[in-house]
Amino acid sequence: MLLHPEEQMKIIQKGAESIVDEKELMIKLEKSFKEQRPLTIKLGLDPSAPDIHIGHAVVLRKIKQMQDLGHHAVILIGDFTGRIGDPTGKAKGRIPLSDEQVKENALTYTDQIFRVLDQEKTTVRFNSEWLANMTFEEVIRLAASTSVARILERDDFQKRYHNQTPIGLHEFFYPLMQAQDSVELKADIELGGTDQTFNILMGRTLQKHVGMEKQIAIFMPLLEGLDGIEKMSKSLGNYIGVQEPPEVMFKKVMEVPDQLIIKYFELATDVHPDDVQNIKNRLDHDENPRDIKLELARHITALYHGEEGATAGKHYFETAFQQNDIPDVIPEILVDLEKDLLADVIPQLVERGFVKSKSELVRMIRQNGVSLNQQKITAEELDRVVMTDDVLKIGKKRFVKFVK
Amino acid sequence: MLLHPEEQMKIIQKGAESIVDEKELMIKLEKSFKEQRPLTIKLGLDPSAPDIHIGHAVVLRKIKQMQDLGHHAVILIGDFTGRIGDPTGKAKGRIPLSDEQVKENALTYTDQIFRVLDQEKTTVRFNSEWLANMTFEEVIRLAASTSVARILERDDFQKRYHNQTPIGLHEFFYPLMQAQDSVELKADIELGGTDQTFNILMGRTLQKHVGMEKQIAIFMPLLEGLDGIEKMSKSLGNYIGVQEPPEVMFKKVMEVPDQLIIKYFELATDVHPDDVQNIKNRLDHDENPRDIKLELARHITALYHGEEGATAGKHYFETAFQQNDIPDVIPEILVDLEKDLLADVIPQLVERGFVKSKSELVRMIRQNGVSLNQQKITAEELDRVVMTDDVLKIGKKRFVKFVK
Repeated sequence: MLLHPEEQMKIIQKGAESIVDEKELMIKLEKSFKEQRPLTIKLGLDPSAPDIHIGHAVVLRKIKQMQDLGHHAVILIGDFTGRIGDPTGKAKGRIPLSDEQVKENALTYTDQIFRVLDQEKTTVRFNSEWLANMTFEEVIRLAASTSVARILERDDFQKRYHNQTPIGLHEFFYPLMQAQDSVELKADIELGGTDQTFNILMGRTLQKHVGMEKQIAIFMPLLEGLDGIEKMSKSLGNYIGVQEPPEVMFKKVMEVPDQLIIKYFELATDVHPDDVQNIKNRLDHDENPRDIKLELARHITALYHGEEGATAGKHYFETAFQQNDIPDVIPEILVDLEKDLLADVIPQLVERGFVKSKSELVRMIRQNGVSLNQQKITAEELDRVVMTDDVLKIGKKRFVKFVK
Repeated sequence: MLLHPEEQMKIIQKGAESIVDEKELMIKLEKSFKEQRPLTIKLGLDPSAPDIHIGHAVVLRKIKQMQDLGHHAVILIGDFTGRIGDPTGKAKGRIPLSDEQVKENALTYTDQIFRVLDQEKTTVRFNSEWLANMTFEEVIRLAASTSVARILERDDFQKRYHNQTPIGLHEFFYPLMQAQDSVELKADIELGGTDQTFNILMGRTLQKHVGMEKQIAIFMPLLEGLDGIEKMSKSLGNYIGVQEPPEVMFKKVMEVPDQLIIKYFELATDVHPDDVQNIKNRLDHDENPRDIKLELARHITALYHGEEGATAGKHYFETAFQQNDIPDVIPEILVDLEKDLLADVIPQLVERGFVKSKSELVRMIRQNGVSLNQQKITAEELDRVVMTDDVLKIGKKRFVKFVK
């Protein structure tokens, strides 16, 4: 069932920022191969229920690749922390959640996660299961496994301590809780972003402390968004959501800057490392990046919408953006993605004289006289697909481009 | 029942190093007086079961004085900490104790405590009662009441952090536990030595944090031992134990250096502050310190052995040390109090020629030919009362003085 350890290692290493430590990982892979026993791969998630984008999905993809190799994933929902919130009430987003909220969040969350992971090879666990039952004495023993200086080493604590920004004593427990989770789950591997370095390594320390084999830490890099600069984030608008329609997803991937093509192949697709190397060679031999990006868009869209979705996305992209009956230079309207689009866009169209009134626009849409990116639309669709560089055609000659 | 608050305040202030804070204490005393409701006075003790000496008894005496004013004492035995010990196994004396050991230690301990305190007005509590039942969530909330920087302010932590001597994270909990004890006991007042400043003030912080009236902290100074320099301690040999026989106690008080007479009156007796002031005036007017020390010795001995004991102690002291049939200058033998006295003393007596052999000494003791401080003794008594300046008379003419 399981691939040869060296083959597995190649796939696991793809795109990883660092692995602590690779020798130990090889030993685990060899043992697992010999015994045909899957490894337990842990990923801890906050129950804050965001919309997942392909930046979040980098760690999930890596886990999916390991599931395809035969291993088992445990998604650890940090509901215990969520239930406590921030007792000082200072940290935003640390408002205590009710049991129902936590469960509800977890459901929307796992729903999205299973757009990436193999549900058959995934267990979802909640850490309140063991943390809520720990006594003060057990907490003291847990605390005794580390020193104050050790915890103050963590980058953000170090800075806050030196800047005299108060660190609540309870905050020292979050890395320890995460470590305790690894002990309880007997994790073989824990994944996380590079911002999780300290916490994941703490898991190794604690496992060793209790006489357990240390988990392997796999750190995945942060993925830059479509602007090519900032890390992908919903609030910056430079993201591709895993739940976005195939047309939007395909079009957005086509906006990825050329220099990030390989990184996206590595972190956002399951393309085999050997094939990524081939693509890299083609790029180095001056093949048109646009053609390779079409492949990238197809890969990514197919991951979330199947081959059919990828085809639809490609078709939309080609008809809407590649046929040439749109004038080269057209007026632009600035769209604020934070606002309700119709309420934001229509007044601007009226003001700039594209339509006389809202009712004229509505009438023309009903008469099939309005198209977006060369396709006739309804008012609802106008709301859905407005994005950077969408072109609206009103009647026969009025073109306007939305920019943000 | 209760004295007027200002009268109470005068007695409470006697000998105290500092009170945090006096205004708040006055408010508590006034309220207690008005409602005829006793205040709850907390003293926390480690269950390490030492022999109590009058240095330890300084805080106990202060509590006894407040009991005499009508208030109620709670002796808090820190058994929870004792049961945990030091989970890292590094700190000496922090070996986990069994429940039985803790209970047994507590008994020998309270036995001695009630040589000072009024048992009728004292409750003994064990903090495992509430600490053992705390959940992780409650621990987190407790920890959230303070910051890392705040705890690192504690002198010893500060030093260790800067010297890079590891501080176990669990150690940060000891001040918080002590504070939690104050919350649970609804303490109005907590007493301690000045080394307890941080921990006791933490109790005020936590009580305020949970919306409770803050306890008053009363810090008592450390009492110097008979050498007049070091703090009283059994291992330094400069102590007066509360369980020592009246003769020994009386004699030891007579060794107190003159400059400490007033401090001993303040910290080791229940003499009213007005009377202490009178004694101070007499000393200032050149009254012989020795006479005043006889009063001090009577007061202290009477506290632990009643008036009868004080009289016996005084009689012994006067016959043994004041009657003048001992030569002014006599040979001295150096005694190592750490060693078994008989095994240490007898070889020296033989070596220095006071007796020919151990068997000669034993024979002479049996024949009533040996006296210590003018009183015939048995071999057992020789062991018991050897102390600085004891004079041994062997036969009719052989005198030897023990010095340490």
